[in-house]
Amino acid sequence: MSPSIHRFREALELDGGQVLPSFDLAYETYGNLSPSRDNVIVACHALSGDAHAGGATTGGAASAVDGLGAGQRGLAGVGWWDGMIGPGKAFDTDRYQVICINVLGSCRGSTGPRSIDPRTGRRYDTDFPIVTVGDMVRAQKRLIDALGIRGIAATSGGSLGGMQALEWAVRYPDFVRSCIPIASTARLSPMGLAWSSIGRNAIMADPRWRGGRYPDDDPPDAGLAVARMVGHVTYLSSISIAEKFGRRLQNRSDYSYSFDADFEVESYLRYQGDKFVKRFDANSYLYLSRALSYFDLAAQWGKGSLSAAMARAPASFLVLSFSSDWLYPPADSLALAEAIREAGGSVESRVIDSNYGHDAFLVEEGRQTALIRDFLERQDA
Amino acid sequence: MSPSIHRFREALELDGGQVLPSFDLAYETYGNLSPSRDNVIVACHALSGDAHAGGATTGGAASAVDGLGAGQRGLAGVGWWDGMIGPGKAFDTDRYQVICINVLGSCRGSTGPRSIDPRTGRRYDTDFPIVTVGDMVRAQKRLIDALGIRGIAATSGGSLGGMQALEWAVRYPDFVRSCIPIASTARLSPMGLAWSSIGRNAIMADPRWRGGRYPDDDPPDAGLAVARMVGHVTYLSSISIAEKFGRRLQNRSDYSYSFDADFEVESYLRYQGDKFVKRFDANSYLYLSRALSYFDLAAQWGKGSLSAAMARAPASFLVLSFSSDWLYPPADSLALAEAIREAGGSVESRVIDSNYGHDAFLVEEGRQTALIRDFLERQDA
Repeated sequence: MSPSIHRFREALELDGGQVLPSFDLAYETYGNLSPSRDNVIVACHALSGDAHAGGATTGGAASAVDGLGAGQRGLAGVGWWDGMIGPGKAFDTDRYQVICINVLGSCRGSTGPRSIDPRTGRRYDTDFPIVTVGDMVRAQKRLIDALGIRGIAATSGGSLGGMQALEWAVRYPDFVRSCIPIASTARLSPMGLAWSSIGRNAIMADPRWRGGRYPDDDPPDAGLAVARMVGHVTYLSSISIAEKFGRRLQNRSDYSYSFDADFEVESYLRYQGDKFVKRFDANSYLYLSRALSYFDLAAQWGKGSLSAAMARAPASFLVLSFSSDWLYPPADSLALAEAIREAGGSVESRVIDSNYGHDAFLVEEGRQTALIRDFLERQDA
Repeated sequence: MSPSIHRFREALELDGGQVLPSFDLAYETYGNLSPSRDNVIVACHALSGDAHAGGATTGGAASAVDGLGAGQRGLAGVGWWDGMIGPGKAFDTDRYQVICINVLGSCRGSTGPRSIDPRTGRRYDTDFPIVTVGDMVRAQKRLIDALGIRGIAATSGGSLGGMQALEWAVRYPDFVRSCIPIASTARLSPMGLAWSSIGRNAIMADPRWRGGRYPDDDPPDAGLAVARMVGHVTYLSSISIAEKFGRRLQNRSDYSYSFDADFEVESYLRYQGDKFVKRFDANSYLYLSRALSYFDLAAQWGKGSLSAAMARAPASFLVLSFSSDWLYPPADSLALAEAIREAGGSVESRVIDSNYGHDAFLVEEGRQTALIRDFLERQDA
């Protein structure tokens, strides 16, 4: 269960003015490319995701992967969007070839801060340049070109993945026929900025972070775990937390009168933090969190006007959001849809009634499937 | 501007089974005690508050204060509820004597983890026993008795203060004539449990915490700052953050492409974290956060039934909440009011329309004042 790795030896100029001299991208594909090589759906992953979106992996032999840092345990198991990708599913691999590419800056096979800088022979660590969603997508476009793909039927993803999906549609207007951003936004909300910055502060406050130059065997796990706990709660809703945990105690009948994790929700959060640090790199978390906070389609493409930015994109849009998602609230998705409409574009938007908060894009497969299949069928008709 | 300190030399048995051999309580009063000594309003403070609620302090000479730990800079400046306490204000000092008592476990004059354990001559640190809201209120009752107060016209407070106000009414039914819990709840919600536990984890994850035994000159500031940032954002609303900061950059015209605090909201949160650690003790934060999470009136007083618990209290209740408070949501206040009604009690409840989130109880003085003055006048009539 390994992704394919494509190595790019030409430099990539970044939005921040720096240059990546070379980079790797890890990716997986599901389904077959059509004879016209344009039946591709780009499934874009969220902050903690990776290339392993579907239940099956490509058979392609993986190249050696440079610079895998602490806690990278491979991509085994069921893909993060397996419920959505496959024969007869929302992204139907009988009709489309779905590709999922690990983003630049991550730690799951693509080049990121734990990779070796070929100019120094040392790890980048915090010398890794800041990458934006735009940079991620430009790197992905090189892979799409390298694979001989001639057109994209749809880009889609939730959260940071939805930002990439939108960036694709605006940056490559002649290449992307439709776009399905889910639980996402054209720019991170001020509330989102706040939580992202708290996560980064938690990591950078950990003395083991050491300005970003920590050894593999002593990473800033404590800070990263706190960042993950913060993120995790923002992905839930008050209803989903209440339904899942309530105030139930964890394996005890009374309070411990201590700082132990007495409540199930406390124990669960510690477990989530501990689990996360085993598979994710703290510096990558910083970089991807920064990319989230910098994303602003209107500023980047429309001189501050979202409708001007969206006027660049002739794609058809299906904008999905979830009623209880307070991190990427439906209002942001509705504002995006309105901007597309103002720009004269084609857009449908649906607020799916769900108690699962931001996580709904990973959980509410059935309801998304019906909407997405119907939308994609009409695009092809 | 110093609070009075009252020293209690009789032991206090605590809900967790441990015993405090002696304790101090810091308090301030505003207005005069009536001849019948029963015109007292107990204003209860929230997690980070202290006895300095009003604009003026008592003239009473302060006793020496044992065990003031790191970062305790005294209680100078305008009180945390100055807009609500004073002549003609919501809590009218022309009619009432308002008293505000620093809670047990805090670091602002009353005995807490940074105090000296008289049995060992050393600081308690994490040998300090866990204190509950019930313990806090039983300690306060001793002070009320010591001051010769014969009846309480009202207890009130926001957040943790509202919990104390409720505990007063249920624990001392013959003593409390009315109760005004604001932006509070009869038990911390599961979402609140989650955020509280993340704050504690951030502190305990800081290696400088050292299991709670840190020196005054090297406290776990980094962890406490992260806990404060988390708390601070939960006290705001998405609207108030958007209105106050939006995505404005801090003293720059473009992104720094670094992990600096580029956005105003990022800079603001760092400032809030840095400011807080100068005046608050990390261990006290842990203890008060634990008290918040353990509070559960129904479990404590009603064998799981909130209306059974509230049936103990003959007081008249005014339950206030704020529309955009997602940490102590209006639904919890409405459920509390409903339980009082079910128990046959007297209750009014108002959800005040406000964008200020949980912080509204400190900010929306005008609207609270009208409701509270009217309510209190009717109690006396």
